[in-house]
Amino acid sequence: MRVMPANEFSLYREMEYGTPEQNETVNRIIAEVRQDGDEALRRLSKQFDGVELGELRVSDEEIQAAYGRVDAEFIAALREAAANIRAFHEKQKRQSWMDLQPDGTITGQVIRPLRRVGLYVPGGKAAYPSSVLMNAIPAQVAGVPEIVMVTPPATAGSEGIDPHILVAAAEAGVRDIYRVGGAQAVAALAYGTAAIRAVDKIVGPGNIYVALAKRYVFGAVDIDSIAGPSEIAVLADDTADAAYVAADLLSQAEHDEMASAILVTPSPQLAERVREEVARQLETLPKRAIAAASIRDYGAILTVADLDEGVQVINRLAPEHLELMVAEPFGWLGKIENAGAIFLGPYSSEPVGDYFAGPNHVLPTNGTARFSSPLNVDDFIKKSSVISYSKEALMKNGRSIVTLAQHEGLEAHARAIQIRLTKEGDTRGGLEQ
Amino acid sequence: MRVMPANEFSLYREMEYGTPEQNETVNRIIAEVRQDGDEALRRLSKQFDGVELGELRVSDEEIQAAYGRVDAEFIAALREAAANIRAFHEKQKRQSWMDLQPDGTITGQVIRPLRRVGLYVPGGKAAYPSSVLMNAIPAQVAGVPEIVMVTPPATAGSEGIDPHILVAAAEAGVRDIYRVGGAQAVAALAYGTAAIRAVDKIVGPGNIYVALAKRYVFGAVDIDSIAGPSEIAVLADDTADAAYVAADLLSQAEHDEMASAILVTPSPQLAERVREEVARQLETLPKRAIAAASIRDYGAILTVADLDEGVQVINRLAPEHLELMVAEPFGWLGKIENAGAIFLGPYSSEPVGDYFAGPNHVLPTNGTARFSSPLNVDDFIKKSSVISYSKEALMKNGRSIVTLAQHEGLEAHARAIQIRLTKEGDTRGGLEQ
Repeated sequence: MRVMPANEFSLYREMEYGTPEQNETVNRIIAEVRQDGDEALRRLSKQFDGVELGELRVSDEEIQAAYGRVDAEFIAALREAAANIRAFHEKQKRQSWMDLQPDGTITGQVIRPLRRVGLYVPGGKAAYPSSVLMNAIPAQVAGVPEIVMVTPPATAGSEGIDPHILVAAAEAGVRDIYRVGGAQAVAALAYGTAAIRAVDKIVGPGNIYVALAKRYVFGAVDIDSIAGPSEIAVLADDTADAAYVAADLLSQAEHDEMASAILVTPSPQLAERVREEVARQLETLPKRAIAAASIRDYGAILTVADLDEGVQVINRLAPEHLELMVAEPFGWLGKIENAGAIFLGPYSSEPVGDYFAGPNHVLPTNGTARFSSPLNVDDFIKKSSVISYSKEALMKNGRSIVTLAQHEGLEAHARAIQIRLTKEGDTRGGLEQ
Repeated sequence: MRVMPANEFSLYREMEYGTPEQNETVNRIIAEVRQDGDEALRRLSKQFDGVELGELRVSDEEIQAAYGRVDAEFIAALREAAANIRAFHEKQKRQSWMDLQPDGTITGQVIRPLRRVGLYVPGGKAAYPSSVLMNAIPAQVAGVPEIVMVTPPATAGSEGIDPHILVAAAEAGVRDIYRVGGAQAVAALAYGTAAIRAVDKIVGPGNIYVALAKRYVFGAVDIDSIAGPSEIAVLADDTADAAYVAADLLSQAEHDEMASAILVTPSPQLAERVREEVARQLETLPKRAIAAASIRDYGAILTVADLDEGVQVINRLAPEHLELMVAEPFGWLGKIENAGAIFLGPYSSEPVGDYFAGPNHVLPTNGTARFSSPLNVDDFIKKSSVISYSKEALMKNGRSIVTLAQHEGLEAHARAIQIRLTKEGDTRGGLEQ
């Protein structure tokens, strides 16, 4: 793992949006689904997943049977995690409100859940039960009445879904599940087919084809952000345990060869010990090839003069995950401007947040923590403004409204007010003038 | 204005994203600004606005002088509107929060304003002081410390900015203003030049070139939604005043030949009276050519069996603006699922909200009220999750976290927990097992 001064490190990573061929494939798949509906879903599942689908919808019996195919320890841990995630997201809920004035003016903001949300869950090795919880529970807490899930069969040639995914869905309250994946599943959610009614928003991770399909359908429906490779940054001082720091860096590096793991520290001693620990711990990791590539290409130990400079580096990085392994972590929290999730102290290892503590693990990547947020209940609600003016309120304020409309050259706007002022007897701003 | 049963009306309007030539132009402009910076801004301003720019930044003297060039009535009305907008958006502000557990677990959500926001303001006839207030004030209320505005000169060949725009900006607290518009201004905000530092988010309306540029830079920075043509829907019964309904429909129709104005009513009598009133009021409108085209192509009076069916039509339309001109408007509010802003009763004419009442006039169009919201303070903040586990909390829950990580095949995640369990003396989930 390279060690270098922070100011020699380049933060910039250009995002990729697929090759022209991948874009072309996705455009074609979407067109097929819009034209042929479920028939296209079956045809494309045969082509890409090698499976002849029977019923698209997963039966209640299959969901129930999944419970018999996973171990009890998994179910118990999943339920604890789900309870924590639900409790955390319940605190994000907001109420509609109104402001009432003595002249009869009422203004307000109505908050309503989205009607119908589609959750994409990858199949195969990227099938993560924790992602099912993290995407479904905020929607459920928001009050979304219809949550539908799409996911491809677990293995090519069979139509069965990974039982861990089915159990996670059921625990999160999702039972409307369709065995279809890829860009075709996204198209079905966006535009609807006979089997799968169109949704208002699509969330959940996926491969490049899923990501391109989500970008394509955005506008017809809402989508969540399109996640880049995972990232961790650790800001640590002399008090940090090098073995903990190294283990946490590697926990992100194992995700993806493009994942980024960065230590920022004013301590040359810690820098050296972490470098050694990373090399040592890497040796025995099952995913050491992936993790080693990630550490080599996107990992770095950045040395800084002091923690204040370290904070500046962190704020420029705007990392997805940030660990503060410093003597007084809460003392530094107020200085952190940009980070998706912030883990404080030696026991708040990043996987605590990935799986269990309650905050969402769907987080802004690639510097977007500068302007975006963890997935949360607000992502599943919509607001409407409410305006009710009394006759008294309109009479009092009508003239000002007319003035502003006329200065913008919007005479029909002015007249909509004037016609009322005239008719209701106050001619000061009325049409007669 | 055509009158037809609601079920014969097609709601679907395909959005346009510019011609290939327009996209090509925007791509070229952005590349030029990224390469040549301020020099490109000057070159493009000469090419598109016909002006040789001196200082890009508008001086404090020019802003002060603008107050002498607008009338007192305008300033007074603008200040009343700004105060109402500020008061409404103050109610949207939220606090960071923390949840504290007896075992030492702390989870929370930190809310911070974006650091730097860019506001695009169109020049020429689409220069609306009200839009300056509606875009700048929510950012300011959110606590954004740096708000920068870009706007092209008011008339070709001169570098002066419309004084109404400058006064609106100053009243909203914005004094960092640059005399540049078009796709080049968006590029400068997104990537930065010597004169204009890069921002975190760009908001504000613009022509097709501005919209395409915003789409292009999205990802490097955040953007607001890209607005479609304006829309109004009125749900009215026999108690509605046909002249008011017609005036309000026309107030949106005058915006744009593609604007949409729709009345939904169970009353054939009202339908007929509104049809006549629209024709009559159209005659004397300064913008009657635009309004007539809008009413002809996108206007409709939709007849329904009763108000319940009317509400269903409204929810499918998901209009930008909705007026409830019915006997008991608040009784129907709970049934409205999809609408950007809802105006209740005969005195809540839509321009009341465009200019004055306080709620934002930047609203979701083209059916996107199904999943998106009026511009609001949340659009100018970002959230970070906070997780702090004590040793006790990690010892208690570590085993469950390990179980979940191992079921996902993420061994480095499991080990980041296990190394702590082992070292801290609890070997139940530790590496020794």
